[in-house]
Amino acid sequence: MKLSFAKSDLIEPINIVSKAVSTKTTMPILTCILIEAEEGVIKFTGNDMEMAIETEAEGIIYEAGIAAVDARLFSEIVRKLPDGDVLLEQENDKMHISCAGSHFSIPVRGGEEYVKLPASESKDYIVTSEFVLKAMINQTLFSISANDNNKLMTGELVEVKNDRLKIVSLDGHRISIRTEALNEDYGVKQVIVPGKTLGELSKILPGELESEVYVFFGKNNITFKFGKTVVLSRLIDGEYFKVDKMISDDYETKIVVNRRQMLSSIDRSMLLVRETDKKPIILKITDAGLELSMNTVIGSMKESLEIEKEGRDLMIGFNPRFLSEALKAVEDEEVSIYMMNPKAPCFIRNEEKSYIYLILPINFIAAE
Amino acid sequence: MKLSFAKSDLIEPINIVSKAVSTKTTMPILTCILIEAEEGVIKFTGNDMEMAIETEAEGIIYEAGIAAVDARLFSEIVRKLPDGDVLLEQENDKMHISCAGSHFSIPVRGGEEYVKLPASESKDYIVTSEFVLKAMINQTLFSISANDNNKLMTGELVEVKNDRLKIVSLDGHRISIRTEALNEDYGVKQVIVPGKTLGELSKILPGELESEVYVFFGKNNITFKFGKTVVLSRLIDGEYFKVDKMISDDYETKIVVNRRQMLSSIDRSMLLVRETDKKPIILKITDAGLELSMNTVIGSMKESLEIEKEGRDLMIGFNPRFLSEALKAVEDEEVSIYMMNPKAPCFIRNEEKSYIYLILPINFIAAE
Repeated sequence: MKLSFAKSDLIEPINIVSKAVSTKTTMPILTCILIEAEEGVIKFTGNDMEMAIETEAEGIIYEAGIAAVDARLFSEIVRKLPDGDVLLEQENDKMHISCAGSHFSIPVRGGEEYVKLPASESKDYIVTSEFVLKAMINQTLFSISANDNNKLMTGELVEVKNDRLKIVSLDGHRISIRTEALNEDYGVKQVIVPGKTLGELSKILPGELESEVYVFFGKNNITFKFGKTVVLSRLIDGEYFKVDKMISDDYETKIVVNRRQMLSSIDRSMLLVRETDKKPIILKITDAGLELSMNTVIGSMKESLEIEKEGRDLMIGFNPRFLSEALKAVEDEEVSIYMMNPKAPCFIRNEEKSYIYLILPINFIAAE
Repeated sequence: MKLSFAKSDLIEPINIVSKAVSTKTTMPILTCILIEAEEGVIKFTGNDMEMAIETEAEGIIYEAGIAAVDARLFSEIVRKLPDGDVLLEQENDKMHISCAGSHFSIPVRGGEEYVKLPASESKDYIVTSEFVLKAMINQTLFSISANDNNKLMTGELVEVKNDRLKIVSLDGHRISIRTEALNEDYGVKQVIVPGKTLGELSKILPGELESEVYVFFGKNNITFKFGKTVVLSRLIDGEYFKVDKMISDDYETKIVVNRRQMLSSIDRSMLLVRETDKKPIILKITDAGLELSMNTVIGSMKESLEIEKEGRDLMIGFNPRFLSEALKAVEDEEVSIYMMNPKAPCFIRNEEKSYIYLILPINFIAAE
């Protein structure tokens, strides 16, 4: 193998496929990036057996070949090289990396060792915009469960119903739902995608409104194609929670509040919360406005915000982090919060329900 | 106590004195900032029993008083407050912090609990520029010893000889010396200042060329006064190493090299070095130029740089980190490196010797 790249044309594909490279693994080959140069195409691949990322690189092939190099070392060297053209040349079990007077030699593994995820054969796909998909992931991913006790909660439901795409996450205390329109009727599909895949995907999705991403639904996997990159991921087996049954339009109290102001108040209140002593933030809703308060062993806080209020007065307590994360995910200047009583979930949603954030309250009288 | 501040006038003094607040201590009062408001002056103090920082804050005193508040909590709250005027009001064992509709209450400790370092009575001082002192610290502090085995090596020698100020650090493998002229003859003084003090001092020194800093030499302490801030520190007892005896002007080989290029080469070579397997970078100096090479279990590197050379050819090995840190401390575009033989130290210095970096070589034949 003998290849030449402009340094910048090498850094980008390395960064992209590194997102799927294992850092902790018993299989050393999975800490590598696979480089394949064949038939005029240079392809980089990273794979941690749960997800794989392939991308094409711009470069000149002087000599075709396949080789695997340690992802971290290769990436660090290339990033620190002087500016200029980078020459990669495999010689037996070494990869020579040369650039403007600098010459590195690092070990190389035969490409045949490399395990590839089975390519997706699915013809069942949808098309959406990079921007929309990236936003839908970022605005729901925060409420997956961090621990593995319930595998389903570590992933997100990706559901297609005719011309609607819906992404859902939940962790037992809250539910996040984002819905967007698709350009045509794609029938009905429902899969559970690992949160890690979606997190890495969102990082490498350029997120252009005009650029398309193709999503292929396979039996055991899902594939995202955009630009010169393909992301392939295993799915989580099982049937997802019946989320629709948990959502309600009824409310006794509705408030409209400035999102940034409420977010700042909640963030300040969290300064008084210790990991070991989870206290709720109390919302007191009256015709006089919204009063937020927090009382812990560290100290106390009280703030007032102007709101538009509809319905009954109410006092209700929440985990401040859950409120904060939902409010951060919203982009609107003003948000509407719908509540029933101090024991029923609140809903943060817009009129058209493109986003719905359900959060269970904390029984704050018991918590006091 | 009842005080009012513009938020920005409060943040700066908190940041300054926080540098001297203990994070790990068995005395809770030392995790506090002391606030003193008396006779029209508001003073903040942080103190970890090794060093103390006092600074004056701009604000209005409605009611005088002394109080101590947890430094981290107070600082986090003030930083997150909305913009506006901040009112501090002590009521019994609480400090009320109010700003634009936000009200916090946090515990307060009586100021009488607070332990103050003994004020310096010394009339023995020098005057230099903030800029010069900050540079001298930053350009030597990297070569103090990180471990406590030899207490003297955890500090820096601060020496005044007539109209010369000298700062020296060493760790057994290298010596860093910076010398600058003073405006007048201040006699002879010699103290060893803890590295931690100098590190924190350099962070809070604004570093203006035109602004003066007064350095007071006491029997057991040193005091730095600049702007509205006073930094007081204990000294390290003992007699410092006879550094002058270790310095020599003789050389057999001298090279002049582009500092940034050499630094980049060395930084790249360090990608191949593991903590557990310290390999030297080999400098091969011939009429053809400087060749840098590194060979480790991870891989190998070889680079060539153009140099001006004087004297004999030489091959010599160094800990790459030591070379890199010395070259980073220098500001010149071209640096001169003086060497004797593969077993004698090299000297990186300028003509006027305002900086001298001595680095011991590594016996690389043994190390191979």
